[in-house]
Amino acid sequence: MAVYTDVSDDDLEQLLSRYDLGTLLSCKGIAEGVENSNFMLVTDRGPFILTLYEKRVDPQDLPFFLGLMEHLFGQGILCPQPVHARDGLLLQEVAGRPAALVTFLNGTWPRKPLVKHCAELGKALAQFHLAVGTFGLSRPNNLSLAGWEKLIQDTADRADEVQVGLAHELQVEIDFLRQNWPENLPAGVIHADLFPDNVFFIQDRLSGLIDFYFACHDFFAYDLAICLNAWCFEDKERQFNATKARALLQEYNRVRPLTTKELQVLPILARGSALRFLLTRLYDWLNQVAGAMVKPKDPLDYWFRLNFHRGVKGPGDYGLD
Amino acid sequence: MAVYTDVSDDDLEQLLSRYDLGTLLSCKGIAEGVENSNFMLVTDRGPFILTLYEKRVDPQDLPFFLGLMEHLFGQGILCPQPVHARDGLLLQEVAGRPAALVTFLNGTWPRKPLVKHCAELGKALAQFHLAVGTFGLSRPNNLSLAGWEKLIQDTADRADEVQVGLAHELQVEIDFLRQNWPENLPAGVIHADLFPDNVFFIQDRLSGLIDFYFACHDFFAYDLAICLNAWCFEDKERQFNATKARALLQEYNRVRPLTTKELQVLPILARGSALRFLLTRLYDWLNQVAGAMVKPKDPLDYWFRLNFHRGVKGPGDYGLD
Repeated sequence: MAVYTDVSDDDLEQLLSRYDLGTLLSCKGIAEGVENSNFMLVTDRGPFILTLYEKRVDPQDLPFFLGLMEHLFGQGILCPQPVHARDGLLLQEVAGRPAALVTFLNGTWPRKPLVKHCAELGKALAQFHLAVGTFGLSRPNNLSLAGWEKLIQDTADRADEVQVGLAHELQVEIDFLRQNWPENLPAGVIHADLFPDNVFFIQDRLSGLIDFYFACHDFFAYDLAICLNAWCFEDKERQFNATKARALLQEYNRVRPLTTKELQVLPILARGSALRFLLTRLYDWLNQVAGAMVKPKDPLDYWFRLNFHRGVKGPGDYGLD
Repeated sequence: MAVYTDVSDDDLEQLLSRYDLGTLLSCKGIAEGVENSNFMLVTDRGPFILTLYEKRVDPQDLPFFLGLMEHLFGQGILCPQPVHARDGLLLQEVAGRPAALVTFLNGTWPRKPLVKHCAELGKALAQFHLAVGTFGLSRPNNLSLAGWEKLIQDTADRADEVQVGLAHELQVEIDFLRQNWPENLPAGVIHADLFPDNVFFIQDRLSGLIDFYFACHDFFAYDLAICLNAWCFEDKERQFNATKARALLQEYNRVRPLTTKELQVLPILARGSALRFLLTRLYDWLNQVAGAMVKPKDPLDYWFRLNFHRGVKGPGDYGLD
């Protein structure tokens, strides 16, 4: 939970004076999200989300993120719509931080994703990948092979505090991935962080995607592999649920058919995706800030996922025929 | 900021099945409030606040608090309206905690209260005191003289860690108050915690009062003294603002005329009120919980207020003619 920056009466008044949104009716900090401060702001024109970008977001990336959201919304993807100020800009400053207003999206995120949620997700992710084809901006993925290697170096000294032998295993894995990482797969802008808390539902129907602040250029199938890890394991047992994976992959495939090569390399992409979240969690775990408001997540959840994918023989293990 | 308990999909579904509120559209934890966990919950019938009562609230007091809110709302006081479940009950259980749903109240609380806010507050507080006359339940004030004495005992060993000589000064003050505390003033249910974050405004007009979880039986003028301390000092300079106090008192007096005796003893009530918040803050300061999500407030802010009231000669010092 997180509101890192408080917004004063003056801040709000100044902000709203730059928009045509009518009278302020309410503004409440939201106890969700890890990276930024979010406020639910209601005016007589409706509800909005005000986001103040905190230090983990590079301000230079914001035009890309906000432009992407606007592009996706225009393409009919269910997501928040960034709101233009009267001067035409999407990006403003509030309390000394870059800030943006977007429309409020109804829905709740599933604490325990079910098969039906995974099916809806597959469809929406494929629609997302089709919709970005006409988006003009790009942003490199800093959390791919080179980024992982850096995180492995940065955690090498202390990884074994979390599990004996982990540092060695990470090195073995990155060596494998460096040699086997695919090339020339269908690619474009991916969400790159489509965890359950970023996908809203109303009564089993997907109502929208949020939080585009890790979006970057990469293989579409890598985005799918991220979802496979984030949605298709039972958290408590750390066990793979092939029924959920099948629902995710089949619905994705129905909207954007996967190529034979994409299917073939899915286990490798899934290993890479598991390593990516294992490494950032490991780094956060080893570098906890005293008094932080956010509890770090257990990196070993992703160690188990990584090991599952190491044992996968082919797409059939993911529930595909 | 505080959401102490997470609410699962199942919890929410079970809760809403007990009400006639239609489809769930959104549920977000709110990063405000210190005592309880609060969620903004939107259904197609509108927005609501779901409160989960955490350990500091005695469940036996909840019928009083919720009944009071319902009574006040019925009397036209601007405040949330508790929502009855289909079985007629206001109190439910969510995630193992007592819980209640109330209507959502528009407005934002003033981070920097101005004179116009104090005037609005005075009027609303007087209306509140007139409205409780027909409310049938009561609850003793556990944070009056006897409660203060207990807090002084509990902090005596370590009060001087905060300021040298403080333990002695607190003993001197409680001796004075015990001997001079008034009797037989107009009394009834008071709010007892009407700080700026519990009073909402839309464009300078008061839109409602919230957080009735300290409400109890006491002198009406003591409630006013609490507001005098909470609203009429400039936080940074710890200085009294007589213009704000005059606005508060005059508007109160216009709706519910203060008796001569109430005016006479106002400085003593203000000393008692300052001591009350000084002591609870001092206790929380000395008993900080590692990893707590709420930063304790500086008890010395109320030490300065207490000293101001010690020097007050009469109601004129509060800006009254």
